[in-house]
Amino acid sequence: MKNPWIQTISLTPPTLQDNTADTDRLLIALKARLNTDALHIDLDLIKKLPTIMRESNYTVCCIVFKDRHRWVLVDVTSANDARVIAGLAIDLGTTQVVLRLLDLRNGRTINESAFDNPQESIGPDILARIHFAARQEGLEKLKALIIDGLNTAILSLCEDNQLEPQNLYMLAVAGNTTMTHLFMGLDPRWIIREPYIPVVNTPEILKAQTLGLRVHPRARVLIFPNVASYFGGDLIAGILFSEIYQNDETAILVDVGTNAEVVLGNKNWLMACAGAAGPALEGGVTRMGMTAGPGVIDQIEIDPDSHEIRIHTIEALTPIGICGSGVIDLAAQLFLAGMIDVRGRFVPEICGSRLKEIDGILHLVVVPADQAAIGADLTISQADVDSLIRSKAAMYTILKTITAAVGISFDKLDTFYIAGTFGSFINPGSAISIGMLPDLPLKRYKSLGNSCLGGATLALTSDNYLDEIDDIRNRITYLELNVNQEFMNRFSAAKFLPHTDPKRFPSVEIKKT
Amino acid sequence: MKNPWIQTISLTPPTLQDNTADTDRLLIALKARLNTDALHIDLDLIKKLPTIMRESNYTVCCIVFKDRHRWVLVDVTSANDARVIAGLAIDLGTTQVVLRLLDLRNGRTINESAFDNPQESIGPDILARIHFAARQEGLEKLKALIIDGLNTAILSLCEDNQLEPQNLYMLAVAGNTTMTHLFMGLDPRWIIREPYIPVVNTPEILKAQTLGLRVHPRARVLIFPNVASYFGGDLIAGILFSEIYQNDETAILVDVGTNAEVVLGNKNWLMACAGAAGPALEGGVTRMGMTAGPGVIDQIEIDPDSHEIRIHTIEALTPIGICGSGVIDLAAQLFLAGMIDVRGRFVPEICGSRLKEIDGILHLVVVPADQAAIGADLTISQADVDSLIRSKAAMYTILKTITAAVGISFDKLDTFYIAGTFGSFINPGSAISIGMLPDLPLKRYKSLGNSCLGGATLALTSDNYLDEIDDIRNRITYLELNVNQEFMNRFSAAKFLPHTDPKRFPSVEIKKT
Repeated sequence: MKNPWIQTISLTPPTLQDNTADTDRLLIALKARLNTDALHIDLDLIKKLPTIMRESNYTVCCIVFKDRHRWVLVDVTSANDARVIAGLAIDLGTTQVVLRLLDLRNGRTINESAFDNPQESIGPDILARIHFAARQEGLEKLKALIIDGLNTAILSLCEDNQLEPQNLYMLAVAGNTTMTHLFMGLDPRWIIREPYIPVVNTPEILKAQTLGLRVHPRARVLIFPNVASYFGGDLIAGILFSEIYQNDETAILVDVGTNAEVVLGNKNWLMACAGAAGPALEGGVTRMGMTAGPGVIDQIEIDPDSHEIRIHTIEALTPIGICGSGVIDLAAQLFLAGMIDVRGRFVPEICGSRLKEIDGILHLVVVPADQAAIGADLTISQADVDSLIRSKAAMYTILKTITAAVGISFDKLDTFYIAGTFGSFINPGSAISIGMLPDLPLKRYKSLGNSCLGGATLALTSDNYLDEIDDIRNRITYLELNVNQEFMNRFSAAKFLPHTDPKRFPSVEIKKT
Repeated sequence: MKNPWIQTISLTPPTLQDNTADTDRLLIALKARLNTDALHIDLDLIKKLPTIMRESNYTVCCIVFKDRHRWVLVDVTSANDARVIAGLAIDLGTTQVVLRLLDLRNGRTINESAFDNPQESIGPDILARIHFAARQEGLEKLKALIIDGLNTAILSLCEDNQLEPQNLYMLAVAGNTTMTHLFMGLDPRWIIREPYIPVVNTPEILKAQTLGLRVHPRARVLIFPNVASYFGGDLIAGILFSEIYQNDETAILVDVGTNAEVVLGNKNWLMACAGAAGPALEGGVTRMGMTAGPGVIDQIEIDPDSHEIRIHTIEALTPIGICGSGVIDLAAQLFLAGMIDVRGRFVPEICGSRLKEIDGILHLVVVPADQAAIGADLTISQADVDSLIRSKAAMYTILKTITAAVGISFDKLDTFYIAGTFGSFINPGSAISIGMLPDLPLKRYKSLGNSCLGGATLALTSDNYLDEIDDIRNRITYLELNVNQEFMNRFSAAKFLPHTDPKRFPSVEIKKT
């Protein structure tokens, strides 16, 4: 598919008999090419046109973008302009921001980079940042942090790839509702207050200049719309990327993180919900928990007979901690080996000398100090396991609630997409073993990787996607979990390993025995 | 007709069951009210919305304007905001700028003011300003002059009427092609160079802030489109005001000035042309010529027997000079009294002692020094009369050419509109006597006054007019006189009083005898 962003237009030069103005001459031809009546041009570009058109003998290269009710002529250059004309997809994460640089002539990825969201200096989570935004100049500071961070990362990414930031003509930004609010400088205060109302669901296409982004000043920025305070544009990007919105068969998409965000549907309908799952699933629960990186334990196996714990670390380095997928593996293996019971309590008879009491709380030593890089035991505490169980119970309950709301049982779902960078590391078998994900054949689980970045990238490859994004947003029926009483009942039942009703997890029964 | 600019909207406050964002909640309701899909809102207004909506209990006053492919939400205030919400129509003249302040709630005029275009300090005419624009910083200086002049006049007009400039939410600006280019900061260089191409025919609706106008920063500015370099938005405004574009009967509209601009047509077709008429018709030809003002001669009669010259001055003061309409009266009376012949030469036998030779050129004393306020004779020279004859010949030729181009004779025109402030002072009888206007019954001549300002005012009274303005512009067939050979032949024949073919002016024949 050829994207429409770059159009070479050859015009008949003006004569006494054909005295249409420069701007109108170009717009008429470009409207015909794009098959549109509505094409906007900024005044500062109009100012440049007479010179560009005459110097290029009326054959020019037009860079266009699609707004909701009109096309936008972003820039006009000489037809033999050989520069790379670039776009940038941005995954605006609470923790990490990922950039993907695209060549707009062919849609190909030039390069990627990532940086920690500088708003972490204010607070690690959304709530802390929203509270900070209410302070004097707090919102301005949060906005400046992310915009400055982006500008630094963009400059660096451009330098690494022999581009000028001026070559960047269009950006697609997907993030959760709070992150996009802070990015636009919108007050997020009502997001966390009942009835949880964002300032805006569907932001307009904005000029980069308006936002303070140092790319081409007329570059256009598409910000993915949100459905609700807790269901953001990152999820809409994920749905776009997953294609579940255009398939016949019903599928489910789960973004696993501090919040569990779930979409269920097909080409005819889409239902979504989101709920707090706690930080446990992202490795934020244990003292030794951390995000994935070199030396971090990401896979664990426990020998069912010897109870020996075998770990795998990223880049096979001496372990420094454990990430979310490692914690899920650990809990699953501890449960299957009988080292924790159905309530998640350590079983002293089986854990043996690995159990230690520290500050009155039982800890299980995963890696002894002499084999760890931190000069101390890497342990998981009873409190850590309890926290993980609450998180996994929340996730399962959310999945159960949304499927029950439309009367679909899990086994009718042909595909179970796991979205998000973190999600892509989860071992579905382990997640099933602890009752976090339903007991479906493993081949039905598909990891989408960074589906948020994938969706943002798609948006820069065809003018059709803007309509599809709005269509997805508008089709979603949002199920508000906060007001659902059944949720609490289901949650209590899910706080066992794998569940109070083990028949729901037959494969785990088999593995246990 | 109620204008649509101010809409009071009562919204249902958000609940857990209805968690649409503030912005989207308002836009959905306003779109339904305006019956549109396309409604734009600026980011800085979105930032204010949550507070305004909550403080006003979700009943708000919306100020909207119509752009070409979408509506624009310009501001949102409390529903009990009692301020005047104002608009401003601007006649952006080369010589004079006229402002009309409107109450947008009812479309009524609050007040008017005028000021001399400060670009006159650069040069009195378009040509001098275009040459100046080519200098280093020349264009910027010209733009700053008109914008600063407007800001000063706006502030003063607002103060006089107990308004803040912030109350001004929409502006409609009509001017000739060069004036609107300088207003937008667009390089006018190609306007005066064959093939005479403007930078833009149809400017976008702009934000006041973009132009540097100190009114409400989000106020929208409608700039009337032009048809060609010498047929500007002032004429489009005039056509709108005259309504000739929607009538069954064919009418003609003439704007008399340094350029003669003519439109011929009806609801089915419109043809236009423009040509240089020289400064004579605006009083710029004689040393004693000036624009209308106190003490300026605006009417003249000559007794056919005694040849006594009876003058009328504005405010009946001792005369200081003569304006364009006075010069036309004077030439007509001199001709009817036999004091100039068919070639416009002074007839010494009849002029008698009123003729004086100054620097080798014959002058006719209109007011002797002892009756004038300037301490010297007020005279008209042979060169002045020659110049006037060239101007009137150009005007008549333009009228003849455009009517011939569509095969309509003058007597088929039921209405002959004279547009422009200057035009409203012309005595059609005198203009006929010198053969400047065709010999039609006087009642067919209708003065439109400041039709440019009238059209700009209309544009602020209904959202339908933007479409009509574009429709008028697009329907006009522009007849390029510069390439018309017949024009020169007709011009030569028209350089007689009233014409080489006196049968075309039967009423003048009768008056002469």
